Amino acid sequence: MRIEILNTGTELLLGTTLNTHGKWFGEELFKLGFRIQRLTTVPDGDAITQALRECVSRADAVIVTGGLGPTSDDLTRECAAEVLGTELIEDEAAMRSLEEFFAVRNKVMAEVNRKQAQVLVGADVLPNANGTAPGIYVPPRLNGAANCAVFLLPGPPRELYPMFRQEVAPRLVALAGWSQPPSMLELKIAGVGESDLQQEIDAKLAEIPGLEVGYCARIGEVDLRLIGDEGAVAAGRQIAHERFAKQIFSEDCSHLETVVVRLLTEKGLKLATAESCTGGLISNRITDVPGSSAVFTHGFITYANEAKRDLLGLPQALLDEYGAVSEPVACAMAEGALRVSGADIAVAVTGIAGPDGGTPDKPVGTVWIAWAAKGHRTVAVKQVHPRNRKDFKLATSQSALDGIRKLALKGW
Amino acid sequence: MRIEILNTGTELLLGTTLNTHGKWFGEELFKLGFRIQRLTTVPDGDAITQALRECVSRADAVIVTGGLGPTSDDLTRECAAEVLGTELIEDEAAMRSLEEFFAVRNKVMAEVNRKQAQVLVGADVLPNANGTAPGIYVPPRLNGAANCAVFLLPGPPRELYPMFRQEVAPRLVALAGWSQPPSMLELKIAGVGESDLQQEIDAKLAEIPGLEVGYCARIGEVDLRLIGDEGAVAAGRQIAHERFAKQIFSEDCSHLETVVVRLLTEKGLKLATAESCTGGLISNRITDVPGSSAVFTHGFITYANEAKRDLLGLPQALLDEYGAVSEPVACAMAEGALRVSGADIAVAVTGIAGPDGGTPDKPVGTVWIAWAAKGHRTVAVKQVHPRNRKDFKLATSQSALDGIRKLALKGW
Repeated sequence: MRIEILNTGTELLLGTTLNTHGKWFGEELFKLGFRIQRLTTVPDGDAITQALRECVSRADAVIVTGGLGPTSDDLTRECAAEVLGTELIEDEAAMRSLEEFFAVRNKVMAEVNRKQAQVLVGADVLPNANGTAPGIYVPPRLNGAANCAVFLLPGPPRELYPMFRQEVAPRLVALAGWSQPPSMLELKIAGVGESDLQQEIDAKLAEIPGLEVGYCARIGEVDLRLIGDEGAVAAGRQIAHERFAKQIFSEDCSHLETVVVRLLTEKGLKLATAESCTGGLISNRITDVPGSSAVFTHGFITYANEAKRDLLGLPQALLDEYGAVSEPVACAMAEGALRVSGADIAVAVTGIAGPDGGTPDKPVGTVWIAWAAKGHRTVAVKQVHPRNRKDFKLATSQSALDGIRKLALKGW
Repeated sequence: MRIEILNTGTELLLGTTLNTHGKWFGEELFKLGFRIQRLTTVPDGDAITQALRECVSRADAVIVTGGLGPTSDDLTRECAAEVLGTELIEDEAAMRSLEEFFAVRNKVMAEVNRKQAQVLVGADVLPNANGTAPGIYVPPRLNGAANCAVFLLPGPPRELYPMFRQEVAPRLVALAGWSQPPSMLELKIAGVGESDLQQEIDAKLAEIPGLEVGYCARIGEVDLRLIGDEGAVAAGRQIAHERFAKQIFSEDCSHLETVVVRLLTEKGLKLATAESCTGGLISNRITDVPGSSAVFTHGFITYANEAKRDLLGLPQALLDEYGAVSEPVACAMAEGALRVSGADIAVAVTGIAGPDGGTPDKPVGTVWIAWAAKGHRTVAVKQVHPRNRKDFKLATSQSALDGIRKLALKGW
């Protein structure tokens, strides 16, 4: 079934309001086995009529949001009546629940609210438990313009979400007449580039009948999306695992920090961080996770050399000989954090976030990351992320967290 | 000028990725004096061709985002060539910068990346400093289908934003042939609620002819937007300053952390942080600012009580008597950070981020913030932010940073 969403509202196009409807509808519809064919956003007013006319000519069902309020710029009802070739009448039941809405709040209903009881002739009125605007459903048979179901829903999420779930979702499923939504699996993968990932597995995935494959590159990770029937998704998952078992860190949309905290909790391990160039991003991500206080105790932001020396016990001679951005300093930071905190694992990062401070030998974006752990040899890697400051920090924190994950997985 | 945005990407319609492009483009275009006529989102693949054909038939300029990557589902170039009736060729300069991108990262370019150097015949190649996909600009005269300018831009914000500002914005202004967009001023204000702000100044602002006023409440700050001719904006600014001079922290869209780093730099002051419940967010925000290493030296993430004791020298008795979330502990943390680091100002936070750990006396969301400074009496405030974990951390960091700003402004 071809479903389109039409969001109305000038504020959505002026940059003052973030439109979260697309993400929400995408998730809700997918759970029912549907996909959004197209999402269109237009300002209040005449643009709605033109866009709605196009939507009903393409789709089997159109969900319109917004413009059902009482004010002069709320014109969705009128636009829909014009496109669908029908009239507006005052609905008695809708009028009664409007009056009730104001009565229970001890408020007087303004005259402008009356228009919210206007519905299209023959349409279903969808009750609104959380606001004054009822929704409106025009079944395909009543739609003169095209064989398309049209839903008019309020814009505010607190009104829209319950109305969709109670009134719209069952009608869509009945229209489609099915019962078996497709499966979706999202594999989050760290330490592999998008193009390398594709080169390794795309051809094999393409051989699986009915499997839809998508890639989304983020900083320090790639999301691999598999959609199809259960068998196809399972076959795709197996191919990804055969080649990238160690790099796949999440299959339930969990972020890397969540996976790390979960793993450390399971293993009963404590973590400490020693951050120079990331300046607290690693510990900030860790402490975004509920329950992280069980595994994370000490964090050191040693931005200045004196801090590396005073807090982590680095010898000044080491800093003088190798410089702050070096393998020996990264290792000594990690080992110092482990010793001072008494944790089981410590990660340390030292690098050049830029924009200034680079040299020919150590350009902006250079970073050393070291992991120290009780009973393990300290290891360090050098990476270069020639990005802006924030993205450099994010890329570094991704590698640091992924290293903790791998270390914790090794067994203890 | 009629401008449409076409966002491509299956992930935007599946609910896995929030589409923030509409809000961002809305803001950026408004600053140039434009508004978005329509925003359309379609999945990867053939849907792009149909939607783009419709966009170019309606608009004077179309901005397409996404689908310029190296993978099999990146088809925007091909779709655009079909709609605009032209061919794709490999661009030499684009190929060279692709090769360079991989060379500076010491990586081998995968064969699939070659297609990212393909551009439409006669189009301008828009350089991408932050990724592998160059942008493409097809001027109206080269567009066989309609008299419409078409921009193909990468989807990831870190690549898209600088490319839009450097390459697209000047071309749009040239196409529109105007020079005098309206003035806009955004005042960022901390420590005042949106409704209080409105109650104090909205009536006075409404008296200024031709001034458009907008409020945007964010966590820990309110943005007041003034749009109009230069005189109207200046008059509105004066009204805001008469009442809220101390609370206005930025008039150039600078974030609070940027203002703080700038101020500390000017005054030659050093900062240290001692964070419990914010877990590094304050230091992370500070170190997001280029040049922050000149003012920020030491950060302590003392998540566990032992860390507060060992790193900041808090007496165990103090923790036992008052509990970690208390005024004496917050003050002792700030003073400990000041002493250990040798900084001029130290801020400390200790609170209950939740979802667990609250008590009737100290519910989830309770936080104590303390500021210590050389030659000043240590001060602390208690706040309650009954929000989710991330928003609690953000609200707390806003208050902590704003307190540093006010302390640094006091003079020394």
